[in-house]
Amino acid sequence: MESQEPKVTDSPLMYSNRVTLKTILESSDGKMVLVGETVVVGGWVKCYKEVKKHRASDTDHASPGRQGLTCLGILKSRIPRFRTIIRILCGPASSPAVREELEPLVPEPTLPSTFFLQINDGSCTSCLQVVIDSTIAPVSVGQILPTGTCILAQGVLEELSANEKQIIQLKAEKILHVGTVEQDKYPLSRERLPLDSLREYPHIRPRTTMVSSVTRIRSTLEFATHTFFQKYGFLHVQVPIITTTDTEGFSEKFHVTTLLGKTSKEKEPVGVSDADVVSLETAKAAVKEKSAVVEQLKSSGNNEESLIVAVQDLQKTNELARLIEEREKSKPVTAVKPDLLNFNDDFFGHPSYLTVSGRLHLESYACDIGNVYSFGPRFQADKTVSSKHVAEMWTVEVEMAFSELGVRLCILKAHDAMECAEDYFKFLCKWILDNCPEDMKFVSKTIDNTITHRLEYMTTSSYDKISYGEAVEILRKVPDKAFETQLQWGVPLTAEHLSYLADDHYKRPVIIYDYPKAVKPFYVHLNEDGKTVAAFELVVPKKDYNREPKLYVQIGTVITGSQNEESFNVLNTRITEFDLSIDQYEWYLDLRRHGTVKNSGFSLRFDLMVLLTTGLIDVRDVIPFPRSHGKANS
Amino acid sequence: MESQEPKVTDSPLMYSNRVTLKTILESSDGKMVLVGETVVVGGWVKCYKEVKKHRASDTDHASPGRQGLTCLGILKSRIPRFRTIIRILCGPASSPAVREELEPLVPEPTLPSTFFLQINDGSCTSCLQVVIDSTIAPVSVGQILPTGTCILAQGVLEELSANEKQIIQLKAEKILHVGTVEQDKYPLSRERLPLDSLREYPHIRPRTTMVSSVTRIRSTLEFATHTFFQKYGFLHVQVPIITTTDTEGFSEKFHVTTLLGKTSKEKEPVGVSDADVVSLETAKAAVKEKSAVVEQLKSSGNNEESLIVAVQDLQKTNELARLIEEREKSKPVTAVKPDLLNFNDDFFGHPSYLTVSGRLHLESYACDIGNVYSFGPRFQADKTVSSKHVAEMWTVEVEMAFSELGVRLCILKAHDAMECAEDYFKFLCKWILDNCPEDMKFVSKTIDNTITHRLEYMTTSSYDKISYGEAVEILRKVPDKAFETQLQWGVPLTAEHLSYLADDHYKRPVIIYDYPKAVKPFYVHLNEDGKTVAAFELVVPKKDYNREPKLYVQIGTVITGSQNEESFNVLNTRITEFDLSIDQYEWYLDLRRHGTVKNSGFSLRFDLMVLLTTGLIDVRDVIPFPRSHGKANS
Repeated sequence: MESQEPKVTDSPLMYSNRVTLKTILESSDGKMVLVGETVVVGGWVKCYKEVKKHRASDTDHASPGRQGLTCLGILKSRIPRFRTIIRILCGPASSPAVREELEPLVPEPTLPSTFFLQINDGSCTSCLQVVIDSTIAPVSVGQILPTGTCILAQGVLEELSANEKQIIQLKAEKILHVGTVEQDKYPLSRERLPLDSLREYPHIRPRTTMVSSVTRIRSTLEFATHTFFQKYGFLHVQVPIITTTDTEGFSEKFHVTTLLGKTSKEKEPVGVSDADVVSLETAKAAVKEKSAVVEQLKSSGNNEESLIVAVQDLQKTNELARLIEEREKSKPVTAVKPDLLNFNDDFFGHPSYLTVSGRLHLESYACDIGNVYSFGPRFQADKTVSSKHVAEMWTVEVEMAFSELGVRLCILKAHDAMECAEDYFKFLCKWILDNCPEDMKFVSKTIDNTITHRLEYMTTSSYDKISYGEAVEILRKVPDKAFETQLQWGVPLTAEHLSYLADDHYKRPVIIYDYPKAVKPFYVHLNEDGKTVAAFELVVPKKDYNREPKLYVQIGTVITGSQNEESFNVLNTRITEFDLSIDQYEWYLDLRRHGTVKNSGFSLRFDLMVLLTTGLIDVRDVIPFPRSHGKANS
Repeated sequence: MESQEPKVTDSPLMYSNRVTLKTILESSDGKMVLVGETVVVGGWVKCYKEVKKHRASDTDHASPGRQGLTCLGILKSRIPRFRTIIRILCGPASSPAVREELEPLVPEPTLPSTFFLQINDGSCTSCLQVVIDSTIAPVSVGQILPTGTCILAQGVLEELSANEKQIIQLKAEKILHVGTVEQDKYPLSRERLPLDSLREYPHIRPRTTMVSSVTRIRSTLEFATHTFFQKYGFLHVQVPIITTTDTEGFSEKFHVTTLLGKTSKEKEPVGVSDADVVSLETAKAAVKEKSAVVEQLKSSGNNEESLIVAVQDLQKTNELARLIEEREKSKPVTAVKPDLLNFNDDFFGHPSYLTVSGRLHLESYACDIGNVYSFGPRFQADKTVSSKHVAEMWTVEVEMAFSELGVRLCILKAHDAMECAEDYFKFLCKWILDNCPEDMKFVSKTIDNTITHRLEYMTTSSYDKISYGEAVEILRKVPDKAFETQLQWGVPLTAEHLSYLADDHYKRPVIIYDYPKAVKPFYVHLNEDGKTVAAFELVVPKKDYNREPKLYVQIGTVITGSQNEESFNVLNTRITEFDLSIDQYEWYLDLRRHGTVKNSGFSLRFDLMVLLTTGLIDVRDVIPFPRSHGKANS
């Protein structure tokens, strides 16, 4: 009651007493409500500027006759420079040159100074300016300034009129926490790193405006996915990650095993120590011997100094024995005898893998309870390096009972998997435009200025549906165009074919269906012609004809779907045709044996969808911790 | 335009022309809107009843003088029996005895009959009665009756007044699809299987009312999770499943590897065949030899019969050679030479594992961009069989920057991870009561009649927060209670201790914090006393004191959380104390080196939460495809 502390405004239910910058900077009414309030904000320093006080020789921006400078006064006198800073720092492209100018070597704060820090907390693209008087810094002022420093500060929010813009800043009254930076080691303190260099620091790169923006867009797309399917009555089912069933028959798989023993510490033997050369028996004998010495000295009662030395010696030997014993337990795998690699001894008693696709498991749920979807990680041990593929990617899979591919059956209004795929895809495009306006503005400015227009266009346009046969006909008739892969009926469509169709011919997304049976998995419904299967793909264009983008987002197929084979006999034959072991599909065949139902579904390659909505061109830039051949370092 | 077909009412945007049973049976206005309409419904037969037409000897339920029986007439005359059927079939506990009576051997339908099928489509707990006249059946009537048969039927929805209840049924006009059942093999056609037998059929068990109800509750809890965190500004981050970092240092891990080669077909050699005993060289030589014979016969021109035999022989030998070659390629792993097991040759170039916990990776995002959560599968290669643990389980993990454990710091209103964990837990309890009323009614009736009351109580009551030290004091003072594990400060609290606290002492959920440092992972913040760490657990009671449940849900700890160590030096020391390899944590230490922030978080064992809300007692009954030691068969 008698506290003199100012009332600190809480962020409702944020489970911390800080207010997020988004609340301050982005919410339309946030500014009004919070200006004048005392709040706590936290974040990491993007850059800073120092203004020395009480010093006539402040030549650079001296305002003669200034006295008792207020923060506002300083700012007003420097609006042009100030605006430049704001534009550079809060906006996307802070050019290295300007950054260097703004980040001189950390000064020796001999005189009191005012520091203008731009901080960001990951809740939005913009930075908040925090004004700190050097006299209130709890540590050496130099320590709160470098890029990457964490600051938690309490102060009053002020509104400034800088030119036509209203700007909010926090006048710090207390610094509650400082997390310093080891500047020589901090990867982001050097000039702006390109995205591929940032991949070396997946744990720190979200501090860049780019990766934090991607993270927000990705999270928003995920919630959009759940919202769409839950709204239309689909149940989410978590399909197993560890599986014994090969869903596709096409991909390289990872083994999941406990046969390789414990290997946690054999990775880097840290120099050669006693433990490397002494055997466990020798060490245990030494322990016994030295225990005896200790006992003897204890019973003799005199020579306390010798006893202490002996006890210390015993302790060391004990520690050595323990270390050796532990190493024995976690022997390097190269020492595992081959006969241990019998899968009967493996955890599951037989070979098991990381799932390549959850569609078969998900389909079993569709064949029991109707419409279902799954969202989870899928794995391929593919060693080729590609901007569209890494070993671990997230996929949205959808399966629907009582659903056929309507376009093929000439059903008037096709309520089918194709329709659902198209609606879902459009829903994602629209949702991201509606729910991430600031981030979309940012990626438009920095990556691809056509992205917003492109997403809007995809949301509103209608997509042509053509059969594979029609696609081949269109492509064969193209004059003056030599495709690298010569087209004939039966070959898979390559990126250049898909690009021609979506970019040049239709100039919008296009759905291709009824593929040759050899290019699709065994479970896809065999059409009556005996040659094609009821598969479809949603292909997106990479160009925008209205504007010239800086980069082309090469995505091609973003959704792959199919009606699945409902006939037991046909499915059985196709498993044999694909030369797959029938035993592992017995459970799947049960669904055809017992109450089979026409069903269809699709999967969306979620990481490609993030590329599409951000304009980035490599999945390793949109996956938090990408795993690829030779790359899994955390 | 000239079509005589009735207008079929579509289910809006269900991507199939059927209407879900939930729309018909559960939505309050659905019934009103749809009665009298022609709709398509689909589902699987739960059971059926036959009523023969035009036959005076229909002794069982004969109504003398009946003529031109309508469906309604039959039903009205049999209301008591009909009600019994409805109660048994649509409700939870169809006792085996009654089911047998209702499911006689499939009859020979010599005379036209009317069949009353109860079908369910997984959208709700209730069944819809479909009335089918034997004359419209597209296949032998016997084939559409057995349990598990899939039916897609078009007809008119009728409303019946049976006693005080309004009942909806579909009078079928067309049968659009029938998926028959191999009755002798169908696992669910036998009398009601207990849950542990159902585990053998994870792909079919969702057809039971119990498992479909669990699936709906699970899916609803998932959406509740996303809704809660997105509402409060948390970003979802997909942490990696494949990792090189040991997050806990406690658990057994699965290796992820490509060192074991291809093993897709060596699993079960199906009997000994030629391919097992003939070498590839021999087979290839035989092919060459037999080709020569064929060529010779062809050139000689006569003896067509011999040529045919020779060609067939060649084909067989060719097939054999192909088979052997393929087996050679996919040689059992036991043939892999030990020197291949050098991790430099592995996919990632070093040992890599399935993640045990995503908290460290998630924390790195929290230390960059604030409040984040993750929802995904986590793995432990634990061979012990437990009702609360399998190898692959889903976990919700949450990390918050600028968040300390407030209760310890005496912050008046603790906006911290504990508060967030409690709010989230209560949100889930309330959400499931609000959004799954029918399923909750079902599990209350069949599993645990205290469940609804218990969830309501957990939603509204306030939870005590006590330190580990206080918990030990309470437990040591318990008179007349001999715990199996003798308590002294420093030992982990066991299930019996937790049960005493939550069930007997507090009689509601309780949060325990500040654990001895040895029982928690290395990354938990070391308190000032140097003995305890800032960890907490949310423990739920298994009993309901107001009612006597049929089963006890033994859950204990459902949420585990902590404030994490923000000091580089302390963290570094603790990694060494835990005898973990510092190299694998270098990236994690970066977060302390550069702009460290006080942060805290927690994880919810999602599968246990599903147990808590369904009243079931084994996670294998609530996980779609449970994986445990020796069990991964699909």
